[in-house]
Amino acid sequence: MATPRIVILGAGYGGLMAATTLMRTLEDGEADVWLINKHDYHYMTTHLHEPAAGTAADEKVRVPLRDVLDFDRVHFRQGTVKRFDPAGRIVELEGGETIPFDYLVVALGSEPETFGIEGLREHAFAIRSLNSVRVIREHIEYMFSLYRARGEDPAYTTIVVGGAGFTGIEFVTELAERLPRLARAYDVPEEAVRLVNVEAAPTILPGFDPSLVAYAEAKLREKGIEVHTNTPIKACTPEGVVLQGDREIRAKTVVWTGGVRGNRIVEASGLEVIRGRVKVDPYLRAPGYDHVFVVGDSAVVFGEDGRPYPPTAQIAVQEGRAAALNLAAILRGTPMQPFKPNIQGTLASLGRWEGIGIVGKRRFYGLIASLLKRGSDLRYLWQLGGMPIVLKKIRYFFA
Amino acid sequence: MATPRIVILGAGYGGLMAATTLMRTLEDGEADVWLINKHDYHYMTTHLHEPAAGTAADEKVRVPLRDVLDFDRVHFRQGTVKRFDPAGRIVELEGGETIPFDYLVVALGSEPETFGIEGLREHAFAIRSLNSVRVIREHIEYMFSLYRARGEDPAYTTIVVGGAGFTGIEFVTELAERLPRLARAYDVPEEAVRLVNVEAAPTILPGFDPSLVAYAEAKLREKGIEVHTNTPIKACTPEGVVLQGDREIRAKTVVWTGGVRGNRIVEASGLEVIRGRVKVDPYLRAPGYDHVFVVGDSAVVFGEDGRPYPPTAQIAVQEGRAAALNLAAILRGTPMQPFKPNIQGTLASLGRWEGIGIVGKRRFYGLIASLLKRGSDLRYLWQLGGMPIVLKKIRYFFA
Repeated sequence: MATPRIVILGAGYGGLMAATTLMRTLEDGEADVWLINKHDYHYMTTHLHEPAAGTAADEKVRVPLRDVLDFDRVHFRQGTVKRFDPAGRIVELEGGETIPFDYLVVALGSEPETFGIEGLREHAFAIRSLNSVRVIREHIEYMFSLYRARGEDPAYTTIVVGGAGFTGIEFVTELAERLPRLARAYDVPEEAVRLVNVEAAPTILPGFDPSLVAYAEAKLREKGIEVHTNTPIKACTPEGVVLQGDREIRAKTVVWTGGVRGNRIVEASGLEVIRGRVKVDPYLRAPGYDHVFVVGDSAVVFGEDGRPYPPTAQIAVQEGRAAALNLAAILRGTPMQPFKPNIQGTLASLGRWEGIGIVGKRRFYGLIASLLKRGSDLRYLWQLGGMPIVLKKIRYFFA
Repeated sequence: MATPRIVILGAGYGGLMAATTLMRTLEDGEADVWLINKHDYHYMTTHLHEPAAGTAADEKVRVPLRDVLDFDRVHFRQGTVKRFDPAGRIVELEGGETIPFDYLVVALGSEPETFGIEGLREHAFAIRSLNSVRVIREHIEYMFSLYRARGEDPAYTTIVVGGAGFTGIEFVTELAERLPRLARAYDVPEEAVRLVNVEAAPTILPGFDPSLVAYAEAKLREKGIEVHTNTPIKACTPEGVVLQGDREIRAKTVVWTGGVRGNRIVEASGLEVIRGRVKVDPYLRAPGYDHVFVVGDSAVVFGEDGRPYPPTAQIAVQEGRAAALNLAAILRGTPMQPFKPNIQGTLASLGRWEGIGIVGKRRFYGLIASLLKRGSDLRYLWQLGGMPIVLKKIRYFFA
């Protein structure tokens, strides 16, 4: 009998954790594990707002796969998934290569949701990948450099961030710390620099604890960020954004953080999806396909209260690990375990040394929240690759 | 009798040297000296290729006027000259302010000469001012950041530099030292990076000593720069350049260093000009206007061989000083001195620690030429502002 092949699609939080868990759990010969990913590195999506703002090096958020995987035990193939066929048990890459599988772990993440807002896809940036956030950082610097060369038009030094969820708030607070330095470097008077956060909901961080929201609002004010809640964006143009009521903000940089949706490749696969995400069974399998696991933002898991868990890194990591252990159970003929997320808390940064969050039932503010977040980041790195990877990265978290 | 007013237009090499010389030469009450400049700083035009390439900080080339002028002795007005009337003895600034003068020193520099090449003005960058070279640097970085985000199109990492005169050669050699680092930072494979220098003349550095040209050519080859001589640019488009013969080079960055012409404001002033430059009398005065001096790239001085001196910083500095001393002579009723340039040599860098040049009758190559160039730069700073300004800048020249 041939060794069964497990193919993992994507090396984000869910996929990479599935790969490292399989690597550590399976004995030689139990399965061939393949990991397919667009890049030869993993990136910490929850930290992308930092290289986007230019406050952290790319290397803070990037983890070379070679540093956490033994390529003799996990066969890595760099490539972009074009489609996969759960019934035909085949994955096709851009370029035409096909890879058959016996078991599949779908961990392809999410895509920005533009809610049909006109021009957003064309004219706004998204905090999506390391490649995309470098473009944001360089675009902002480029526009600052153009301010004096283009008649001191403040549109060049106005940045509009759409969405005041976690990513939007973490990004604007981070960016607010950098803009004064950028203004000085490019001889831009401080009054020409505008950082605007626009949110359709009545409050920033919708759904989050109100006292933490109030704290965040105060910090945003303190940092000089203009916040417009109850303000849907109607359209995005090369000149800026048009708000509901046709008020316009002229801005050469618009970053959209307003939401994510499931992945188009998952949608096109024939798996049953809800807004692009697969409603998995208790073992994280796609309905009707016992050999296909779906984890991370590609999956949706409903809690006992009937509401879906939000698409977070925390849950993706737990799902990746759970899917890997269930795959091992299948291979060994032992019983699978139903997935139960363990929500340890939620932490958001508000710039370098500020944050808010809930851990257990306790609220945290300011420096303490910020340090707790660093702790949870390092714990994640520890889970990924142990002490060597923590040692490689720790300076970026405390520099 | 009212104190006569001397107005100096421009704080480049010529204008600033005129201002500092007047400041040191005139006694209180001899004249009111005004300096009008777009920025409150001087920049070393001959070093602009370094911040353009991103190999030196802006502060290397920028000298705040406050650091070299006593504003109690030289009245500084920040503004952009819109026009001046040599007969009506008035200068008009953008915004409408008018400033009358008794004596004028025109030191408005040059403008890029595009030789009517289609699209050059719209789609190519020029190494012209601190503001403009920051844009070049940021544009290049931005394009590198887009390489991966835009389907790995090598047009994003191809840079075409038009012109292989001093500025073109100094820029490409400087840039060649930075591109490998930039490629690594943005995960661009080295083979996708192209740096192309295009020159219409049969050789790089046309007119320069042939053995130095041969040395420079070898260095360019060594640095992986593609050089195309005998290759006029026919057009510049948003996609790159079209060469004579309709060969196209796809490049998102095109920098034009192909030549300079006189200033349009000088042309429009009614002064007699040759290709935008005023052919001054032996005392550096405009023909027919004994109270108007013209120095630097705005002026053209012919040597004894009947050929014009090239528009260099070296000559501009000497002219600025000579015009100031002649103004002092006029005020004091002593005889003016005819201007005789003292050409000490010519030095060009070929990257950080490489150069070529002639000093006196001797040729210099490599590190020695590079160090001689640093010496002449520091000598210039010394002339401008003495030890304090040398101490402020020296680290940039040896870092």
